[in-house]
Amino acid sequence: MSNAVEEIVRRVTAEAAGETDSSPEAKLSGAVKWPIDVSIGRGLEGAVAAVSSIGYVNGQKGWLVYRGYNCFDLALHSTYEETAYLLLFGKLPAANELDDFNRKLAGFREVPPQVVDVMAGLPVAEMHPMAALLTAISLLGAFDPMSDETSLEGEMEISLKLIAQTATLVGQIARMRAGKKPVAPDTSLSHAANFLYMMSGKRPDEQTARVMDISLILHADHGMNASTFTTMVVNSTLSDMYSSVVSGIASLKGSLHGGANERVLYQLEEIGKPENTIDWFTRAKASKTKVMGMGHRVYKAYDPRGRILGPLAGLMTEGDPEASNLFAIARELERTVTADLGKTKKIYPNVDFYSGLLYKAMGIETAIFTPIFAVSRVAGWTARALEYLSDNRIFRPRGIYAGKTEQVYVPLEKR
Amino acid sequence: MSNAVEEIVRRVTAEAAGETDSSPEAKLSGAVKWPIDVSIGRGLEGAVAAVSSIGYVNGQKGWLVYRGYNCFDLALHSTYEETAYLLLFGKLPAANELDDFNRKLAGFREVPPQVVDVMAGLPVAEMHPMAALLTAISLLGAFDPMSDETSLEGEMEISLKLIAQTATLVGQIARMRAGKKPVAPDTSLSHAANFLYMMSGKRPDEQTARVMDISLILHADHGMNASTFTTMVVNSTLSDMYSSVVSGIASLKGSLHGGANERVLYQLEEIGKPENTIDWFTRAKASKTKVMGMGHRVYKAYDPRGRILGPLAGLMTEGDPEASNLFAIARELERTVTADLGKTKKIYPNVDFYSGLLYKAMGIETAIFTPIFAVSRVAGWTARALEYLSDNRIFRPRGIYAGKTEQVYVPLEKR
Repeated sequence: MSNAVEEIVRRVTAEAAGETDSSPEAKLSGAVKWPIDVSIGRGLEGAVAAVSSIGYVNGQKGWLVYRGYNCFDLALHSTYEETAYLLLFGKLPAANELDDFNRKLAGFREVPPQVVDVMAGLPVAEMHPMAALLTAISLLGAFDPMSDETSLEGEMEISLKLIAQTATLVGQIARMRAGKKPVAPDTSLSHAANFLYMMSGKRPDEQTARVMDISLILHADHGMNASTFTTMVVNSTLSDMYSSVVSGIASLKGSLHGGANERVLYQLEEIGKPENTIDWFTRAKASKTKVMGMGHRVYKAYDPRGRILGPLAGLMTEGDPEASNLFAIARELERTVTADLGKTKKIYPNVDFYSGLLYKAMGIETAIFTPIFAVSRVAGWTARALEYLSDNRIFRPRGIYAGKTEQVYVPLEKR
Repeated sequence: MSNAVEEIVRRVTAEAAGETDSSPEAKLSGAVKWPIDVSIGRGLEGAVAAVSSIGYVNGQKGWLVYRGYNCFDLALHSTYEETAYLLLFGKLPAANELDDFNRKLAGFREVPPQVVDVMAGLPVAEMHPMAALLTAISLLGAFDPMSDETSLEGEMEISLKLIAQTATLVGQIARMRAGKKPVAPDTSLSHAANFLYMMSGKRPDEQTARVMDISLILHADHGMNASTFTTMVVNSTLSDMYSSVVSGIASLKGSLHGGANERVLYQLEEIGKPENTIDWFTRAKASKTKVMGMGHRVYKAYDPRGRILGPLAGLMTEGDPEASNLFAIARELERTVTADLGKTKKIYPNVDFYSGLLYKAMGIETAIFTPIFAVSRVAGWTARALEYLSDNRIFRPRGIYAGKTEQVYVPLEKR
């Protein structure tokens, strides 16, 4: 690992040590007896959709855990491939298991030629990149003769294909947007390094590859968010995994879910320079403008992902005057907002506050930020859909009817 | 309307008259105060996802209502176009409003030529027809420059396009599966008649068109089923309506949701002739084989849709020895099963029990039955997604973590 990256992640991990003890909520293990009495709000707030052993977010403490391992340790020691294995299979792989898994993923990177051909014929550069990705994943499903395989084993195999090929397709979409020809995957590279290569056409340096790897690790799963929930709902009908992941992507496309890191960048550009920050925030507060990338429905503490990505964004923007100016604004905005709203309203930076800066420093176009989220989250989507499938029940909440009854049909000529 | 069809629907409607009084549940109107205390089971059973004025299913009474109008009246008097208007706008249209709406829908039937071209280049005949439809609707979104329009007005416009174009695309998929060239929509025909024309290449007779029209009316909305719920969840992220409907289709593709009417047909073919029915059912019961098309999670009475479609299937299969034999088996199976399980277990035919027979009698290939469901249900999907959007809150239920905590990361070489 790049020494500078390792040093940063070690420091953040050391600061977080001791904070990550079990909360009472984490002690619920195995104690769930259906039915459960709950008080639910609009948007199914408070409703329990599933019991899971995959990932845990403790919003009060700012704690993100995959299969029992906290995200600080995974960022420090693991790779995206190993993290995906952990999410899917529930344990860290032994050396030979990881070798097999890596080989399998690398072998799946190449997208079927029919899909490449269809995508090459589309005006991808003019399409919303998430709409292009939606179409591309639909095509993967339509062309895969095993897509109707909805057994656990079949869906696991398709999940590995999806983890490998979402990166390939996003790489191709990024290239086509830049007016360049797609490059073929390089199986000698790690998942993160190959993904960067497929976007830029250049093999990345070790530091950039490792920072992308860490970002993919940190975005791989995050509780019952809207796209994960969507994927699970669709898969619970015994639809196939391609269709389920297509729906996760459709959900992530929404501006209330994906896309916040793009908007953080626009905001930093609007502020312009660090010394404008306090005035900008004063005006934003007065006009009730939301500060993008700050605060989170779940986290009432510093988002652990933002805690790691912040200093990494600092590292990656070094030497680039424009990007390091934006980073300085971000740090100043963080100080200003948390000093004002941190203790009283528990408003701290979330994952999106620094991830956009990080990707920008890697030379990635803003429109590709949300597709990168999909490249990572597909591991969490598939892992949770598979876990739910192993003890499946179709999702079928109720609606309450509050409309009219007993309307009498009046013929058209009498209306 | 064809006299024979009218006579059947009048008779069923008259039989149902007086049964459709308000139940206590329907009296909840406006009385919902969030948060709500509920007891929830797996698959979000019992959780309240939304309050809606669009449609109401009273499973105890066997009652299906759209915007206050019971489905018997709508089957008797309305058209699919008028029903779609009712679902979307909340009232029956005046004559000029219906004219405008019909003109708009007919004007949207033609799919953008780029989408036709891409679909024409795909081996659609070898694809799962729902996977082909998923891809086709993804393409509609990717090619529509207004697809990012997530205002209520923009999404309403897209909803009308989707209602018109899902029928066109399913027609094209059916033609391509049959090795035939797609035909262009005929704007002089009703939605149902044009849909039949686009599948078969022949303008249907009045009776067939009216029976398809009634079937589309009866499938247009049905409470908070999995595909409707999926569409609402995706749209609640402020994703676009194409992506939301793509996800509804992905959900409907699942064998626990769509596809039951196909399996009813296979079952009737397996029974072979009416006199085998009692023996077949005795064996099915002994081996705990589920009787397809019988019983429903919500209906504990005769599904009102099946009540109308049953005699219409009888009418449509007349004169076709193979189909009328299957119809005779279906009637015998209905008698046998309900005599045994009707009173005790409230098992009666559901909508799928006769719809497959109906479509088969129209010469439609079995694989197209679930896509037809989408052609109709797209009205309910879009109406409910728009209603929810008008007072939106992103769907975000909880998961309960029951996994390990505080796992210590062991380096690869020590595993």
